[in-house]
Amino acid sequence: MIHESQLNPKVQALGPSATLQINELSQQLLKEGRDIIRLGLGQSPFPVPDIVVKSLQKHAHEKDYLPVRGLLALRQAVADYYQRRDGLDVDAESVLIGPGSKELLFNIQMACQAELILPAPSWVSYAPQAVMLGRKVRYLPTDMDNGWRIFPGQLDQLPPPGDQARFLLLNYPSNPTGASYEPEHLQALAEVARRQKIIIIADEIYGETRFSGEHHSMASFYPEGTILSGGLSKWCGAGGWRLGTMVFPQELRNLQDAMAVIASETFTSTSAPIQYAACTAFSENPEITRYLEHSRQVLALIAGYMVKSLRSLGLRMANPVGGFYLFVSFAAFREQLKGRGIASATELCNALLSETGVAMLPGSDFGLMADQLLVRMAFVDFDGARALDAVAEGQYQPEDFVRQYCPRLFAACQRLEQWLEPSDKDNK
Amino acid sequence: MIHESQLNPKVQALGPSATLQINELSQQLLKEGRDIIRLGLGQSPFPVPDIVVKSLQKHAHEKDYLPVRGLLALRQAVADYYQRRDGLDVDAESVLIGPGSKELLFNIQMACQAELILPAPSWVSYAPQAVMLGRKVRYLPTDMDNGWRIFPGQLDQLPPPGDQARFLLLNYPSNPTGASYEPEHLQALAEVARRQKIIIIADEIYGETRFSGEHHSMASFYPEGTILSGGLSKWCGAGGWRLGTMVFPQELRNLQDAMAVIASETFTSTSAPIQYAACTAFSENPEITRYLEHSRQVLALIAGYMVKSLRSLGLRMANPVGGFYLFVSFAAFREQLKGRGIASATELCNALLSETGVAMLPGSDFGLMADQLLVRMAFVDFDGARALDAVAEGQYQPEDFVRQYCPRLFAACQRLEQWLEPSDKDNK
Repeated sequence: MIHESQLNPKVQALGPSATLQINELSQQLLKEGRDIIRLGLGQSPFPVPDIVVKSLQKHAHEKDYLPVRGLLALRQAVADYYQRRDGLDVDAESVLIGPGSKELLFNIQMACQAELILPAPSWVSYAPQAVMLGRKVRYLPTDMDNGWRIFPGQLDQLPPPGDQARFLLLNYPSNPTGASYEPEHLQALAEVARRQKIIIIADEIYGETRFSGEHHSMASFYPEGTILSGGLSKWCGAGGWRLGTMVFPQELRNLQDAMAVIASETFTSTSAPIQYAACTAFSENPEITRYLEHSRQVLALIAGYMVKSLRSLGLRMANPVGGFYLFVSFAAFREQLKGRGIASATELCNALLSETGVAMLPGSDFGLMADQLLVRMAFVDFDGARALDAVAEGQYQPEDFVRQYCPRLFAACQRLEQWLEPSDKDNK
Repeated sequence: MIHESQLNPKVQALGPSATLQINELSQQLLKEGRDIIRLGLGQSPFPVPDIVVKSLQKHAHEKDYLPVRGLLALRQAVADYYQRRDGLDVDAESVLIGPGSKELLFNIQMACQAELILPAPSWVSYAPQAVMLGRKVRYLPTDMDNGWRIFPGQLDQLPPPGDQARFLLLNYPSNPTGASYEPEHLQALAEVARRQKIIIIADEIYGETRFSGEHHSMASFYPEGTILSGGLSKWCGAGGWRLGTMVFPQELRNLQDAMAVIASETFTSTSAPIQYAACTAFSENPEITRYLEHSRQVLALIAGYMVKSLRSLGLRMANPVGGFYLFVSFAAFREQLKGRGIASATELCNALLSETGVAMLPGSDFGLMADQLLVRMAFVDFDGARALDAVAEGQYQPEDFVRQYCPRLFAACQRLEQWLEPSDKDNK
């Protein structure tokens, strides 16, 4: 009854989000009995901390519509968290709560006619949101040898903005690369952004997963121009709960207010029981501190093993310093792959999924050229609860740990090895 | 740092949703110690059924991102519910789950370049969503003497649609009027809609609150052109949980698919623990059947008393047949109110809130002219759990019931009486 021409062409231009698409495809193959190692969707491998689950149980009866901007106690808890964690001068008024940071990121682009400046590669949904809203996207190239980071000179060389505002979306530790920024680098970026009147949306949702524990917030260096995006999905293992946060400087209160208007006409408020439970998650608590320490230890052990193992196969990648991703280049195998009919990152991922059962995402979904043969590997297919228990009780070498507690990640490396050296295997 | 001109003018054209605004203002006044009778926000007065709360507790640990369109078991439960309740031929594939029906209604308008046809009055957020998205709104007038319903002839007289699709948003039982439609009326509307190729979005979220229990779905009469909107907020007392549903005919699968694309780039999926609990809510269960019967009895008793009481003051309204709203005309007091400086519905609501402490919403927020002096009264300020227990245990006359179990609604009627007859009181 509806012609294609009556649908929104800006939406029709997109497919479903690549990340979610591969997750659903993997689940489909799993249902068909295939043994799929799921390194596609970037879902935290860890359970929600017990104390936070108990808090949800305790507040399961909460049924009232909460304020559009979020439960006051939660907004205060989030402000306290950032004061404690990063020394930021923020209060409850600075905070917006939403049903996932993705929804808030869409909302902020809807609220403001801004050009979106994106490092390439960037997370899969930033650009599609801009496309759906008719916003212009400008990419800043990065490369592996520079650790996939942008540099101040790139901001200085941008053309004048005209009448539009400009948002730089800076996500670190990065999905998909695991790269991050040190204080001097952030300071230098802040100085240019300040001079160029660029607003930075700092998506620091992986901040707590930095292996060293030493994440530095952009808001410390550029407080008046940084909007800090976060949530429960990554460090708290609660992606499916759908709770995101944004923290605004006083200087951007008009933007925050416009977002509240949009929120009141779209999601209304974030699920009440989830918000009450999130108060516990953002509060200072030894159980959560331990959980975070152990999470980081597990991720560091896995990253250590995976990087070494994959490099030994001839694959290349920058060292990840946080998160649960490796951004892996198959460029060294370009000729061999071409011989097997594989010339793009998407063809590579499709072949890997169907021939080895290892699900990963192509770099082209993150804003890079398909012929760069880059693949994002989310090293999350293991029993997070068991892994946390293990590091709580003992010391491990990376290989021993992965072999024992993350056997599917170990298997993924083996399958890749076999796949990359088929003729060798046949000859032996 | 952001100039007003850089904000989205379509968003700037709106204020916050009137409904949520008055709720937050009421809460503010409450905090200041004022005794506010809150008849503004249309929140169900009843607790979430115990069996559903327990289900949320049981599933509090669920942390995975669920599929964009919703948990399969929930989509099946929703399809089964509509098969059981309305005899509809729908399956899990027909269903979308979202974080509130408001979000899904926004999403559907974003997905399709459609003109929105709205009966006036209509719920406060339909039109602002259209404005934010740059969609055209066309109002169909209704009036109190016709029970605030639209008639087939009004659809027949619409100008030709041109290239755009057309959505008729039909909400019944109605927020704000409590009006509903009988089968013959729905059949007649369906025939015109079919002929005119108008897609009906049937917002039947109050269906289970029809006092008689005899709600009839538009989808029974116009299956190929009806999108059925619902959720947990009204009949299940779980507004704050944020879970909405939409059911599509096979003929509109392309629209449903476009909505899934938008969902994957905005809210991602609906909160996992909430979705698992919703499976229980939509399943056949004697506890929920009893809860619904008792809810309807309570609402019918209150509506019966309130209508009689307010009419005795000289106020006018149509008989509500479902929901928890009265749409009350103060037109008979026009001259008296003019003498007190009150000429619009908004001035009327402001005066009532500040002078009597009764919070209500002006009819102008629902698409009517401000000088019509109409006010929406949500009769929800009472202890829903206690009221349910009462009707489970005894038979009541409306006045006795309201006096005993809804003393604040009783007080609201008294305050209105005193406010409307100030000189009489002074003379006595």
